[in-house]
Amino acid sequence: MHDNSAHSSPPSPPLHAHRLAVIGVGLIGGSLALKLKQQQWVAHIIGVDHSRANLEQALRCGVIDQIAEDAAHAAAQADVILLATPPHAIARQFKALRSALDDTKVVTDVGSVKSEICAAATASLGNKIARFVPAHPVAGKENSGVQAATAELFHNHNVVLTPLPDTAADALQLVTRMWGATGATVSTMAPAQHDRVLSLTSHLPHVLAYAMVDFFATFEDLAGAYDMAAGGFYDFSRTAASNPEMWRDICAMNRGQILPHIQQFQARLKRIEKMIETNDGAALERLFAAAKEVRSQVAERRTGSRSPR
Amino acid sequence: MHDNSAHSSPPSPPLHAHRLAVIGVGLIGGSLALKLKQQQWVAHIIGVDHSRANLEQALRCGVIDQIAEDAAHAAAQADVILLATPPHAIARQFKALRSALDDTKVVTDVGSVKSEICAAATASLGNKIARFVPAHPVAGKENSGVQAATAELFHNHNVVLTPLPDTAADALQLVTRMWGATGATVSTMAPAQHDRVLSLTSHLPHVLAYAMVDFFATFEDLAGAYDMAAGGFYDFSRTAASNPEMWRDICAMNRGQILPHIQQFQARLKRIEKMIETNDGAALERLFAAAKEVRSQVAERRTGSRSPR
Repeated sequence: MHDNSAHSSPPSPPLHAHRLAVIGVGLIGGSLALKLKQQQWVAHIIGVDHSRANLEQALRCGVIDQIAEDAAHAAAQADVILLATPPHAIARQFKALRSALDDTKVVTDVGSVKSEICAAATASLGNKIARFVPAHPVAGKENSGVQAATAELFHNHNVVLTPLPDTAADALQLVTRMWGATGATVSTMAPAQHDRVLSLTSHLPHVLAYAMVDFFATFEDLAGAYDMAAGGFYDFSRTAASNPEMWRDICAMNRGQILPHIQQFQARLKRIEKMIETNDGAALERLFAAAKEVRSQVAERRTGSRSPR
Repeated sequence: MHDNSAHSSPPSPPLHAHRLAVIGVGLIGGSLALKLKQQQWVAHIIGVDHSRANLEQALRCGVIDQIAEDAAHAAAQADVILLATPPHAIARQFKALRSALDDTKVVTDVGSVKSEICAAATASLGNKIARFVPAHPVAGKENSGVQAATAELFHNHNVVLTPLPDTAADALQLVTRMWGATGATVSTMAPAQHDRVLSLTSHLPHVLAYAMVDFFATFEDLAGAYDMAAGGFYDFSRTAASNPEMWRDICAMNRGQILPHIQQFQARLKRIEKMIETNDGAALERLFAAAKEVRSQVAERRTGSRSPR
């Protein structure tokens, strides 16, 4: 998406290659860093992380070019600041960034929950709030940490931006271009809508997968269960390998959406339980057929919008 | 697994290539037919199905060589009879097969529920019960029907045999070799153990996926939900594309295992709900971390026992 088409070959570097600060150099921050460097969208990457060992590994692997002591120091040397820690830690970073920000800099984040992060930014950034572009790349892997980072993580995935009324147009445009450069599909939503929709499509499925694996582990014939875990359980439980700290934060920060969704899901499950209990095969078959149809539509839309892999 | 190593090149046909009757020429029956023909384990395949159009397609595609009117006629011409319809229909077939069976023939099935099918076989086959080898290939796809059949469906998948006390040793050996020829991992369990373990690893995850998709479809912002369905929901709901009739039968025939599992799962989910409600982040993180560990062990065992793909 970055426009360097004005010159013919040999390709010249982009007019302005950015200096990026990555606060939290894990799977998401590391993958974005790799891709933006590959695309020459950034010239220099400054990393901050609570783990020194992690930072040194990121430096050795060329994911970052420089280590900074903290977010404020990194922000002072960068023009794009990416907050890529778990969500709680994102919300706590804004205060330290306020004095480092000016009208040439942009702060963005990758938090899976947007309303609370936006509220924290509004409370902490004061008159610098125009420089904040809230974002959520809907991508992940079974493995977390910088060692799992890969430049193609976001290709054909959704990235949702949830700009605030005060977000500056140039800041929003820059973050839109940045994610466009990764091959992601970028869209915008209001923060509350994001949290409601993602609670359904991501947070609830994660909670159910965790609950299923939690139940699995209590089974009396665990050896037999492990032997047969490929059947249905395998795909179902994939998301339960996600980062526990991140999911703790998501559950806490989006509980207003997740709790009613858990309760509504339980009511739907109770309906199925009742159909099985009363041996209502016709109702079960109708429900299963309707679900199959919905799932097919979901799969078709994905096939339609994504390249095969 | 079929032993034709006694002769050097050019490879001679197996000493005894079987005549196979496939009752229910869908994804499972069709895939097994394709593979056994490819392996020269069968010389001739006779198909029976309630859909004439389906049978004619199977004949055109070379999945079967001949159409028979019903199971009894097919069984009279075959030495291996495979019952590959949905589970209820499998249980209803035994009566018609009894008179066609003799000590040179073997009946086997592919039903996902074993106790009820074994009980039906015992009740209907009388003194021919020795010729029945109950089996369950734990494999499937999002699409069903013979058009989805593929010779490699069972490669590296589990096939569970649940022989009865009366099952003849030669019949068990033949079915073991047949599934071995597909590249599957063949093991044995008692029928009740199979139904208990598969209820956990397959039936419950399917029910939860159906319930999740059923809930998804009630969401007030369905357009937004479809747009974001790639996040977590996608893997989670894959199994909800399975054959509704088959899953109706499984729920009915294994309700003794599935109902308590649904209830126990709900209790585990309630625990998580309470942790979110009371904002007990430490307990949530511990539970998520333990689930991640279990899931990693499941993934490792699978990677260890399977070739990469």
